[in-house]
Amino acid sequence: MKIDNPNPIEWTFSERAQQLQSSAIREILKITQRPEITSFAGGLPSPATFPVERMKAAYDKVLSETGKQALQYGPTDGYAPLREWVANYLSTEDCRIQPEQILMVSGSQQALDLLGKVLIDEGSRVLVETPSYLGALQAFSVYRPEFKSVETDEHGLVPSSLEGVAEGARLLYSLPNFQNPTGRSLSLERRRELVETCARLRLPLIEDDPYGALSYKGEPMPRMLNMNPDGVIYMGSFSKVLTPGIRLGYVCAPLPLVRRLELAKQAADLHTAQLTQMVVHEVVKDGFLDQHIPTIRTLYASQCQAMLDAMDEHFPKSVSWTRPEGGMFIWVTLPENIDSRKLLDQAIAARVAFVPGAPFYANDEVANTLRLSFVTVPPERIREGIAVLGALIRAQV
Amino acid sequence: MKIDNPNPIEWTFSERAQQLQSSAIREILKITQRPEITSFAGGLPSPATFPVERMKAAYDKVLSETGKQALQYGPTDGYAPLREWVANYLSTEDCRIQPEQILMVSGSQQALDLLGKVLIDEGSRVLVETPSYLGALQAFSVYRPEFKSVETDEHGLVPSSLEGVAEGARLLYSLPNFQNPTGRSLSLERRRELVETCARLRLPLIEDDPYGALSYKGEPMPRMLNMNPDGVIYMGSFSKVLTPGIRLGYVCAPLPLVRRLELAKQAADLHTAQLTQMVVHEVVKDGFLDQHIPTIRTLYASQCQAMLDAMDEHFPKSVSWTRPEGGMFIWVTLPENIDSRKLLDQAIAARVAFVPGAPFYANDEVANTLRLSFVTVPPERIREGIAVLGALIRAQV
Repeated sequence: MKIDNPNPIEWTFSERAQQLQSSAIREILKITQRPEITSFAGGLPSPATFPVERMKAAYDKVLSETGKQALQYGPTDGYAPLREWVANYLSTEDCRIQPEQILMVSGSQQALDLLGKVLIDEGSRVLVETPSYLGALQAFSVYRPEFKSVETDEHGLVPSSLEGVAEGARLLYSLPNFQNPTGRSLSLERRRELVETCARLRLPLIEDDPYGALSYKGEPMPRMLNMNPDGVIYMGSFSKVLTPGIRLGYVCAPLPLVRRLELAKQAADLHTAQLTQMVVHEVVKDGFLDQHIPTIRTLYASQCQAMLDAMDEHFPKSVSWTRPEGGMFIWVTLPENIDSRKLLDQAIAARVAFVPGAPFYANDEVANTLRLSFVTVPPERIREGIAVLGALIRAQV
Repeated sequence: MKIDNPNPIEWTFSERAQQLQSSAIREILKITQRPEITSFAGGLPSPATFPVERMKAAYDKVLSETGKQALQYGPTDGYAPLREWVANYLSTEDCRIQPEQILMVSGSQQALDLLGKVLIDEGSRVLVETPSYLGALQAFSVYRPEFKSVETDEHGLVPSSLEGVAEGARLLYSLPNFQNPTGRSLSLERRRELVETCARLRLPLIEDDPYGALSYKGEPMPRMLNMNPDGVIYMGSFSKVLTPGIRLGYVCAPLPLVRRLELAKQAADLHTAQLTQMVVHEVVKDGFLDQHIPTIRTLYASQCQAMLDAMDEHFPKSVSWTRPEGGMFIWVTLPENIDSRKLLDQAIAARVAFVPGAPFYANDEVANTLRLSFVTVPPERIREGIAVLGALIRAQV
C-alpha cells in the first residue's frame, strides 16, 4: 500500500521545541540502572514503602462497586470526594481550604507545566532558588522565561534578596521542605518573612511540597499556603507518601488562577484518570496515611543516618554537606577544584553514581556540587559506595 | 498563622492563557447530565461496553505479580511491552512499525497538546478539516496558530484543495475514519491521493484515529500511516475500544519527531502511569480486542440505525444528515434560517440535548449544523428524542 518515493519531510520544530533538553537526571538514570551500580543518583522513592496489598484491595473494591463510573471520562477538575479530602487535609484552624481551589493533576510535574503555560510568556521573569528542582526548571523552560536565581543559605531562601528582583516577576518557585536537591528546609521564621515579603511585593509564591510529610521527627512545618491562601500556590503529590507510578498530584490555588489551570488541563489531557483518583481516595479516606507515612520516615531516617555516618568517616574535611531532617536528598559541596561531572565519570567506572549539581542551577552553574539520594540503597551498600566516593575525592584534594 | 492584611495579587496571565476557553461540549455536558434529559450531546462511549471484570482481573494480576514495578516511576516513552504490542498492531505486510516510533500518552488529547507544543509557533499555519474535532482546535489554540480550514465534501477532505494553502504550513490535522463531528470517512482513493499530495508538498499529515476500529461492517480502512510512515503521524487511543477513564493513548511518528515529543512529555508529566500501561498490556496481549470490539460495533450499529430510522421518520425534507458506517456521531445540516444554538435552548427546555456545530469550525462558523451522538442512549429514548427535535425543527421551516 505504500506510496512511491515520497519526499522526505524537513521537520520545522517550534522555537520552544528546539531548546527542549532531556533531564540530566533521567539520562544518568539510564546508565545507572545496571544492578552492579550503587546508585545514589535516583530521585525515586523506595519501592519497599509501596503499599501494594492496600492498593490492590482498593482497585478491587472500586472496580467491583463503581467500575463503570471509574472507567468513564470524568471532570477536568478531578474526582469530587478526593478534592474534598485534599481540601480538608490542607486546612488549618484559621484557614479553611475550599474544594473549588483544588485541581487534581497527573503528578505534580503536570502542575509545573500548567503553571508555566498559564503564567509565563516568553521573557517573563521567573524567580527560583539557588539551586532549584531540575524538573521545574525543565517544565518552565518550555515557555521561555528569563530565570533569576534567588539567594539561599543554610536556612533556605533569603527573603530580603527578593527586593531587587521581584519587579515584574510572574512567580517565585520554592521548595520549603527538604528541598530537592539540597535537603534544606526553610525555618518557620523565614517562612513568615517570605510570605510577608511576597504579599508586599504582590508576587505569586509557589510552594512545591512533595516531601513535607517525610519529616524524620514527625512534625511537619506549617505550610506557607495557610499563612496567605490568596497569594500562595501549593503543589502536593501522592508520589512520595503512597506511590509515584500512578501519577497523581494536586495543586491548590486562588480561584482566578485555578480556573485558568483547569482550562489549560482540559486542553492538555482532558482529566486525570478517574480510576486512579477513586482508588487513592479509597486508600486515604480513613486515615491510612497516618499509619503509613511513619514507616517511610523511619526507613528514610535510618538510611539518611547511615549515609551521614559514612560521609563523616570517609569524606575529607574540605568537603561539606547538608544534614537533612527529612526527605530524600543530601547536597554535597566539594573543594572548588573538583568538577562533579568529571568525578561522576570516575565514580561510574568504580560502580557508584550520583547526580552532578550543575543542572540544578538556573543561572550560574556551580560545578563542585552534587546530589546524593539514600532512599533506595541498603545501608551496607551506602557505606561501601560512600567509601568509594570518599577515596575518589581524597585522591584529588 | 495567617499574615496580616496581605496585598491582593493582581494576576498577570500569559497571553496564551488569556484566550483559553472551555470546550463548548464540556460546558453543555454539565447542563445535560441531569437524568431527565435525553442527551445526544455526549462524546462518551457507552459504559455498557466497558470490560470491567477483565480490567479487574488484570489489575489484580499485575499488582500481585509485579506490583512494585507497576507502582514505581517509569520511562517517559512508555512500557516497552505495550509499545511493542502497538508497533505490531500498526504494522502491515509492507510497512513494519518499530517500537521506537511509539510514544505512550495520557489519552490522545495529550498527543494533540504535545504535537502543538513541538510543531506550532505563534502564527504558524495549521490546516484542519471543515469542520474539525473541537478538542484538537482547543489543544492547538494554546500555541496560537493561524488555522486554515481545508475543504471537505461527503467523501471527507478534498486533497486538491491543499494546493493553495499548504505553503509553510506546519501540519495538516485529519480524522479519516468516522470523523468527529461528522461521522464521515475518507474513501480509499482519497486516502492515497491525500498521502501523495502531502508527501509532494512535504506537509506533515496527522492521522487521528480513535474510531477506526468501530467500523460497523467490521472491515477497517487502511491506515494512511502505512502508506507513508515517514510523513504521517498516527494517533491511537484505548478510549473507544476499551475504556476512556484510564487515559491511555499513543502516537506513532517518524523518529526525529517522536524524540522531540518524548522530551516535551518528560517536561509535561514525566510519563504515563506504569500500572495503567501494564494492565492494558495484560488485557490486550492475547487478542482480547478481537473478541471485544465486535460487541461494541454491534451495539453502536444498532443504535445508529435506530437514530437514522427516527430521523427519516421525524425530520423534514429540508434537513440533511450523514449516514455513518462506524463510530459514534451523526452530523445534521438544518435549513439555513435555523441557528442550532437557539434550537438547543428550545431542545433543553423540551429535555433533549445535542451539540451545536459552530464550535467545530476553525474559521467560518456554520450556524445551521449540529452533532448527534447515539451511543449512550437506548433506542426507545433515541426515537422519542428525535421526535422532539423533529417537531422543534418543523415548527421553524
